[in-house]
Amino acid sequence: MAVYTHVSAEMMAQFLGDYDTGDLISFKGIAEGVENSNFLVETRGGSDGHRFILTLYEKRVDPGDLPFFMALLDHLAMRGCRVPRAIADRKGIQIRELAGRPACLIEFLEGISLSTPTPAQAEAAGAALADLHLAVADFGGSRPNSMGPAAWQDLASRCAGQWQQVDPALEHLVRAELAYLKANWPSDLPQSVIHADLFPDNVLMLGDRVSGLIDFYFSCTDARAYDLAITHSAWCFSTDGTKFEPALSAALLQGYRSRLTLTENERAALPILARGAALRFTLSRAYDWINTPADALVTRKDPMAFARRAAFYADPANALLFA
Amino acid sequence: MAVYTHVSAEMMAQFLGDYDTGDLISFKGIAEGVENSNFLVETRGGSDGHRFILTLYEKRVDPGDLPFFMALLDHLAMRGCRVPRAIADRKGIQIRELAGRPACLIEFLEGISLSTPTPAQAEAAGAALADLHLAVADFGGSRPNSMGPAAWQDLASRCAGQWQQVDPALEHLVRAELAYLKANWPSDLPQSVIHADLFPDNVLMLGDRVSGLIDFYFSCTDARAYDLAITHSAWCFSTDGTKFEPALSAALLQGYRSRLTLTENERAALPILARGAALRFTLSRAYDWINTPADALVTRKDPMAFARRAAFYADPANALLFA
Repeated sequence: MAVYTHVSAEMMAQFLGDYDTGDLISFKGIAEGVENSNFLVETRGGSDGHRFILTLYEKRVDPGDLPFFMALLDHLAMRGCRVPRAIADRKGIQIRELAGRPACLIEFLEGISLSTPTPAQAEAAGAALADLHLAVADFGGSRPNSMGPAAWQDLASRCAGQWQQVDPALEHLVRAELAYLKANWPSDLPQSVIHADLFPDNVLMLGDRVSGLIDFYFSCTDARAYDLAITHSAWCFSTDGTKFEPALSAALLQGYRSRLTLTENERAALPILARGAALRFTLSRAYDWINTPADALVTRKDPMAFARRAAFYADPANALLFA
Repeated sequence: MAVYTHVSAEMMAQFLGDYDTGDLISFKGIAEGVENSNFLVETRGGSDGHRFILTLYEKRVDPGDLPFFMALLDHLAMRGCRVPRAIADRKGIQIRELAGRPACLIEFLEGISLSTPTPAQAEAAGAALADLHLAVADFGGSRPNSMGPAAWQDLASRCAGQWQQVDPALEHLVRAELAYLKANWPSDLPQSVIHADLFPDNVLMLGDRVSGLIDFYFSCTDARAYDLAITHSAWCFSTDGTKFEPALSAALLQGYRSRLTLTENERAALPILARGAALRFTLSRAYDWINTPADALVTRKDPMAFARRAAFYADPANALLFA
């Protein structure tokens, strides 16, 4: 949520000289996305649109993964999903370098990210997620889930002895959930490329219509129903995780099912997948919390907001909501 | 250079409901300006334009000064200067409140801020500054210069004992310059409202044309030639102040003089006004340097970059450049 790398207007104008985008007329650093530097770029007179996001990839994104992400976005756009494609320069190259970092010039999409979605908006997001799953059926790429169950134990180990910095209750919850999930995690569910991070932040909307899905930098190959579970954990609670929102939950699931039928196995697995999703964000946030100075550029997100979701999903009484 | 206050899209959409701007279709926090929170806002269907900057005023701007700034921008725009006016809501109000802070919806201007201007661009900036001075001739407002000579001694006192944190040479330079400027500062120069902070950052350009002057939050009543001296100190050196750029200097002065003749007194005063300008930014940067944690949101600017300019201007051999 900050601009980490300085890019001058002169550097940007020179960079754009390799594209059919016309002349630079505006250029602003924007506070958006994961830990990348993003700029809103406007041009005039080109043939390739006139507004773009320039992204410089900082530490969190492995440059080796960029070709996968860009191919995925091209595929999704070709299949009619509203996603931001990387623009190719005149030589056909999408992944360039600027200021010593991998850099992509990306389509700008209209739409606003909601903080408190309505049920109608949750339903549209569920449908858009299913459309994404349908659209990747014939996509050839794959990428392991670097934030999947195998990574959770490692993240937990790296927080060892420091849970108290976050909350006294966290160590026990993490240990119990890790043990349960390790013993019960399903392995026989339909897989595809998934978004894996479809928070309301990453869904652009115009009214009740989805105008864009963005921020695919966690996309990977995993169970489709796990993607639905991640999205459920991200959309169906108050931000701090203290309040479950049944109307949003029903609408999100309804939207997804309106496009894609869940198998019996998927439906049965959703409660445990949701526990896994909640633990995944609890752990990544706890790791960031412990390793980020309180006054750093990045706003730390409260791990307990997802620990509360994990506890909610672990309550057998709540498994019924996925039935 | 950051977004300090969170504004949700829902809050923004509600705020815009009081304006004739149409529906919100995009909303991004931008890294721009002094210590305010800024958002780039795009709408569709309204009668009052479709792109805006929303500014939330944080600690550096006194809310009591906002009516002066907004009246100044309205006046300048009416006189043909390219400046961003505040948009009035349907009740005619320009200065509103959002997220507990004074908030203005401001015209978006095209153009890019240069890091390394060319002489042609410096000439255009000089002409734009003179046009601003001409345009305020019949402006009724006034505001004391809160960063003028009276403030320098106070800033220096608040840095007492801490100069070493910046540079061992700084304390002596500041003491010598303060004494010289106090004894010799001119008081008989033509005054008007001035911009007082016309760095290349605050001049939007399209090619060699000025498309906007922005960031009027230091504007005040003071000597016009002091505004030219500030602009000279900001435009005519390498960023770190080690290299004077004679071609930029000649072009800037030429641009200003092409619109507005300097009086004999103004011309004679420029060397000392430039020393004052360089000291003013040395002191404000030193104060910020000493009082800003190295890892804070704000990037600290090097006070020595302006201390070097002060030393340059203090050298009698360099007084000739204003002749």
